[in-house]
Amino acid sequence: MGRAIHDSDSHGSCLVSAGLQAESPGPESTAGAGSAAAMWQLCQGLFPLARSLTGAGVRQSLDLLEQAIDGQGESDAPELQRFSVPSGTAVFDWTVPREWEVRHARLIGPDGQVVIDHANHNLHLMGYSVPIHATMSLAELAPHLHTLPVHPDWIPYRTSYYADNWGFCLTERQRRSLQDGTYQVDIDTRLFDGQMDWAEVFLPGDSDDEILISTHICHPSLANDNLSGIAVATGMINALAKRQRRLGVRFVFVPATIGAIAWLAHNQRRLGAIRHSLVLSNLGDAGPFHYKSSVSGQSALDRVFAHLSNSEPAFSSLAVMPFSPYGYDERQYNSPGIALNAGSLMRTPFGQYPQYHTSADNLDFISASALQESLELCLLAIEALQTDRIYRNLSPMGEPQLGRRGLYRAIGGDNQGQQRQLAMLWLLNQADGTHSLLDVAQRAGLSCQLLASVADELLQAGLLEAI
Amino acid sequence: MGRAIHDSDSHGSCLVSAGLQAESPGPESTAGAGSAAAMWQLCQGLFPLARSLTGAGVRQSLDLLEQAIDGQGESDAPELQRFSVPSGTAVFDWTVPREWEVRHARLIGPDGQVVIDHANHNLHLMGYSVPIHATMSLAELAPHLHTLPVHPDWIPYRTSYYADNWGFCLTERQRRSLQDGTYQVDIDTRLFDGQMDWAEVFLPGDSDDEILISTHICHPSLANDNLSGIAVATGMINALAKRQRRLGVRFVFVPATIGAIAWLAHNQRRLGAIRHSLVLSNLGDAGPFHYKSSVSGQSALDRVFAHLSNSEPAFSSLAVMPFSPYGYDERQYNSPGIALNAGSLMRTPFGQYPQYHTSADNLDFISASALQESLELCLLAIEALQTDRIYRNLSPMGEPQLGRRGLYRAIGGDNQGQQRQLAMLWLLNQADGTHSLLDVAQRAGLSCQLLASVADELLQAGLLEAI
Amino acid sequence: MGRAIHDSDSHGSCLVSAGLQAESPGPESTAGAGSAAAMWQLCQGLFPLARSLTGAGVRQSLDLLEQAIDGQGESDAPELQRFSVPSGTAVFDWTVPREWEVRHARLIGPDGQVVIDHANHNLHLMGYSVPIHATMSLAELAPHLHTLPVHPDWIPYRTSYYADNWGFCLTERQRRSLQDGTYQVDIDTRLFDGQMDWAEVFLPGDSDDEILISTHICHPSLANDNLSGIAVATGMINALAKRQRRLGVRFVFVPATIGAIAWLAHNQRRLGAIRHSLVLSNLGDAGPFHYKSSVSGQSALDRVFAHLSNSEPAFSSLAVMPFSPYGYDERQYNSPGIALNAGSLMRTPFGQYPQYHTSADNLDFISASALQESLELCLLAIEALQTDRIYRNLSPMGEPQLGRRGLYRAIGGDNQGQQRQLAMLWLLNQADGTHSLLDVAQRAGLSCQLLASVADELLQAGLLEAI
Repeated sequence: MGRAIHDSDSHGSCLVSAGLQAESPGPESTAGAGSAAAMWQLCQGLFPLARSLTGAGVRQSLDLLEQAIDGQGESDAPELQRFSVPSGTAVFDWTVPREWEVRHARLIGPDGQVVIDHANHNLHLMGYSVPIHATMSLAELAPHLHTLPVHPDWIPYRTSYYADNWGFCLTERQRRSLQDGTYQVDIDTRLFDGQMDWAEVFLPGDSDDEILISTHICHPSLANDNLSGIAVATGMINALAKRQRRLGVRFVFVPATIGAIAWLAHNQRRLGAIRHSLVLSNLGDAGPFHYKSSVSGQSALDRVFAHLSNSEPAFSSLAVMPFSPYGYDERQYNSPGIALNAGSLMRTPFGQYPQYHTSADNLDFISASALQESLELCLLAIEALQTDRIYRNLSPMGEPQLGRRGLYRAIGGDNQGQQRQLAMLWLLNQADGTHSLLDVAQRAGLSCQLLASVADELLQAGLLEAI
Repeated sequence: MGRAIHDSDSHGSCLVSAGLQAESPGPESTAGAGSAAAMWQLCQGLFPLARSLTGAGVRQSLDLLEQAIDGQGESDAPELQRFSVPSGTAVFDWTVPREWEVRHARLIGPDGQVVIDHANHNLHLMGYSVPIHATMSLAELAPHLHTLPVHPDWIPYRTSYYADNWGFCLTERQRRSLQDGTYQVDIDTRLFDGQMDWAEVFLPGDSDDEILISTHICHPSLANDNLSGIAVATGMINALAKRQRRLGVRFVFVPATIGAIAWLAHNQRRLGAIRHSLVLSNLGDAGPFHYKSSVSGQSALDRVFAHLSNSEPAFSSLAVMPFSPYGYDERQYNSPGIALNAGSLMRTPFGQYPQYHTSADNLDFISASALQESLELCLLAIEALQTDRIYRNLSPMGEPQLGRRGLYRAIGGDNQGQQRQLAMLWLLNQADGTHSLLDVAQRAGLSCQLLASVADELLQAGLLEAI
Repeated sequence: MGRAIHDSDSHGSCLVSAGLQAESPGPESTAGAGSAAAMWQLCQGLFPLARSLTGAGVRQSLDLLEQAIDGQGESDAPELQRFSVPSGTAVFDWTVPREWEVRHARLIGPDGQVVIDHANHNLHLMGYSVPIHATMSLAELAPHLHTLPVHPDWIPYRTSYYADNWGFCLTERQRRSLQDGTYQVDIDTRLFDGQMDWAEVFLPGDSDDEILISTHICHPSLANDNLSGIAVATGMINALAKRQRRLGVRFVFVPATIGAIAWLAHNQRRLGAIRHSLVLSNLGDAGPFHYKSSVSGQSALDRVFAHLSNSEPAFSSLAVMPFSPYGYDERQYNSPGIALNAGSLMRTPFGQYPQYHTSADNLDFISASALQESLELCLLAIEALQTDRIYRNLSPMGEPQLGRRGLYRAIGGDNQGQQRQLAMLWLLNQADGTHSLLDVAQRAGLSCQLLASVADELLQAGLLEAI
């Protein structure tokens, strides 16, 4: 009794909450059930490897990454394509560096005991340290020892890619225990004309337009920066491979800065097809999401993330940060000659947590559930891009009569039905051939998912066309 | 003594409050003195009539409306033009429904007593109920009985225009008193190929451009929704008929949804002349004003109402709401193929007061003074549109010397004189042929009335021309 | 130890405060060391002179102003060019008034004592009083006596330029002490066909484009309004004469309103070269700075002052006010036919301090340090205009490798180095040929000075070109 009957095609009381913010359902787990475990397993495998800009550690990492892509060996599985470029190759304003190999690196104390050994922790050796075999006093050694006095048990991460140098990174506690006397420095590394490696996965779409997802692969034994990005990108590959795709999705795994620059230099003709781009990093910690806008501040992805934070209660704590030219490879993608307008997704932004670039950024600092939540958010964003079509109302003179088509199903008290109804009215009202689904979603304060579902229904009823 | 003399054509202290918000006079009663009483009388006459989308109730209502227009019988009185369209006529995506006639409708209890009778209250019968003469148990009857459990003494308003159905609406208290047993349903209605009626009043202007005022006429025995809209529109006709009009004003009285759609379908060639449009409803209750913006959010009327709330202290509580595709006939006027950019004026918005669409929306819920205040606001808005010209300063090189033309009359302490002076300076400054009077009013924070008065003075002094 | 070594060309931790507001240095004293003393000395010299729209007081003031320009007598010193225009000359809508000469003006009491004497204070005589020699009762005299009852010890400033009248201004205390009886009015003035004077100083720039600085010179014995404007403009001349100038700077010293209108009428062909314009007044009091925007609200100077308040801690209290058509000569410069989009800089805005237009606006009300601070702000604004070029990044594909050019010098903990680095990245990122230095400064939240310095370095490195 009561409110069961409503006059369906006239104005009335059934949508009295029309002006209210849509209540959208919590994010359903759109990724495969095993994705959290698979991402976690990948991080565990990658953590011990000695990555740098170049070298065997990168190649071993790409091997693991390949194994983590579902369906390997099957003909329709996504393919990890590997690329390499020789040291010395000019890429835009830069030159590909020499390859770096570490055989061993030890500091031996006055008593002949090994006090620091790269075999114990990848971070103990400054990245790209040149070979040196020498004895010296503790005072002579001091400029080459790097610690974090405020975190006496953490090893800092240091590199010297573009200036010849060497150094040990150690805990402040280790540093304080060093006795005066003569030390033996035994760094057996090799810098030679080798190669720099990267890899790509491409999931083709119905159109030639592409979404670019980029993450860096050059940090050794650091979990949040950068294993989390690699893991979430791999989770995305596995989820998206099973879905219909209007737009292709290209995943790029590159050494930071020089790798991104080399990739851009080698793919210049391809850039015109890239409509959206996103850099992933720091996605495994417990902090709230931060989306850093593209240089334009108005890209579709900029608007998608802002809208997700407004329309998805599960992601309402997502903060949108303005663009800054300092950061990860969005620096390159947003440079004026490249102009891909890349955004960047993180949980706690780089440099804003004390563990950043230290040995404390380890597997204890990240979690499978945080990775999974990051994956869900990324998939929602991709879905919003995939469904962001422009529609035209084919019955634009007044409202079409939805009732006789069975499209007027709002029932008093049925909030979801009301939201659906309202989404339909918004879409019909705005479908004048100039507003995209995301435009309508933002204006109506409704989720892209709901509007995409309603758009399908109106398409089937012949009331809309996609243009 | 003191501040009586000022150097009138140089900068000085006389306008030190230049940056302050203008103090504008309270709204003078711009409508005729008897307008409140006349509107109230019309509502009293209309309330008992059995209106619906179609039928005799609508026609009787239009008869009363015609009588309420001043000067009927005189040659220069505004004419109420009546139109009808046969059932079954295709109008855009819709079809004009059958006409509905109620002879009687009664529910007779197990003891033979009439327990519900349409003759007692128009709302007792669900609108567009099909005829039925049957006996049934209370359990069988239940799905056809509609009540409001939270308001046990109110009768709800229900219709089923586009699906064949029948029902009784009653108070919850009546419902609870019904005994088990066999009931006789005696609904003697008729649905037949008749006609749908509407009416128009057109007040021509100096130009071919028009303002459209639209209100619905299909609700039986509901006072705020919709007698208040009919009454205020009629009050506007009587006030505006006596005024000079640059723009014509067209008043449209139509059944909701299908009536507006039929009107649009029959007036397609006329739409190009409509520059502004406003839907009236819910204008008799005691709540604060709400103006719902057009779909563009930037129509002249959108800006007029926002400005009135900023510049008229008497209407400072007016709230501007964003457009939504749910509501009254602004849904149709804002559809993408029609694109009239209609706004909608209400006091308490529909659905946001409990009496909405119940028997409690009766003559006690509205008042003559609220109708009068609504009329004043509507007339101010119309006046702002009528005076919204674009002017060009004919002495644009520096300021013209106002003093030698007797236009510099600001006296220290004379706030109204200062406002007038400031309005003159703003208008001369902004009159570059691109800003309209409303543009200037908004920027200066001064009332349109003040600027229009000042514009007249500058026109007469030959310092401005209207373009 | 510790953070001495950083990987300079990759992302990293060295700029973790990238998103923070730049810390810019306090304003260094960019004006000459003696500027405060010189400005103060000029005000002291100008204060006693009997200025008005016309007459000897103006010419004597211009004499002093000329002497205050550094290097007078040397061939390369800035030249004060003097202009005059005869009474009766038509200038746009106005006519140049008669010249006004005061020989003496006295009010003699019933006892034969002089009770008011213009020789004691310039403000005692209403400006442009016509000659009169008459006896009258105190009651007849009353309409010609002007006081400030709320400030019984201050003399008000009154003029009647464009209506024949006469009057005495006196303190309320003086007024109250006047006995009943017969008074002798002895105003020996002369209004005759003479001339109106003004002056200019032009400092040429590398381009033909100019900045206009305008201040009025017609107020007698009022310090903040208007000696402060004259003094700061003169300080700017002395400071800017020694600097390189991309844009010329034209200083205009004119009687208010009629002087500005006459200057505009005589310089119409020159207006096209004026890219920026600023009116100076009320710059010697202790209040916070107020910048009144141009009519467009978007001029480069509007943006410069808004940015200075955001980026210079020393000027963070500067308030930006919207344009109003009431004020000083920005009224004329912003008129629709002139359209120079002039801003106006003040400390406490005119009319918002009680001393305004009274004898209390004397040398005690202003200070050398306030003038000096005003001068610094004006010079920062001019510098921001001078350096506001558009640049193009000549290595726009990704970031150029700054490290190998010695441009990557950020050291952990070196905040200034980090700001410099960040400024470099912002400039390279935004230098796409559409953004000016000011655009970049505003977006990055960095000072124009820092960005201009960094731009020089990048120009020298061949990474930028100015366009």
